[in-house]
Amino acid sequence: MVRVNSMFNVKDEADAQQVKQMARQLIEQSRLEEGNLSYDLFQGSTPTCLLFCETWLDNDAFKAHVASQHYTTIMPKIQKLIVGNKDLKIFEYE
Amino acid sequence: MVRVNSMFNVKDEADAQQVKQMARQLIEQSRLEEGNLSYDLFQGSTPTCLLFCETWLDNDAFKAHVASQHYTTIMPKIQKLIVGNKDLKIFEYE
Repeated sequence: MVRVNSMFNVKDEADAQQVKQMARQLIEQSRLEEGNLSYDLFQGSTPTCLLFCETWLDNDAFKAHVASQHYTTIMPKIQKLIVGNKDLKIFEYE
Repeated sequence: MVRVNSMFNVKDEADAQQVKQMARQLIEQSRLEEGNLSYDLFQGSTPTCLLFCETWLDNDAFKAHVASQHYTTIMPKIQKLIVGNKDLKIFEYE
């Protein structure tokens, strides 16, 4: 199985709200993908800190996700609101 | 390094708010611990889904955390509001 943690910051709470809005459709469609076990966007106690936490059956499922139409359409729009670096961690486990 | 994902659900948004309230002190004190690199409580787009996402320098730092006074005092109170099982994942990485 694959657990993805993609943690990032945005400029302010208004941008955080906008990312959460844009992410709704991405969450909905990602959860329908074959091999998805969990997928959500989380907001930290620091409201400008956001985290995609995802669980995939295997690497193939995760690769199909990042090539999917909804990901390649929506994520670039979210990317524009990210400030600083993304802390992306991908863990494989049994 | 050690990344912890502790994901759980609570009964309703009022309980989610209560957990976030209780977690404030736990977050503050955990971030001061030696070997802590990040520590926050995140709330999902499903507001009753909460996630502690933590990063520790090594296993010793993480073990010291779960034995700490603030953890052993606060976490049992949070535990009472958790419904169903906790999805706890602990990843070691370089």
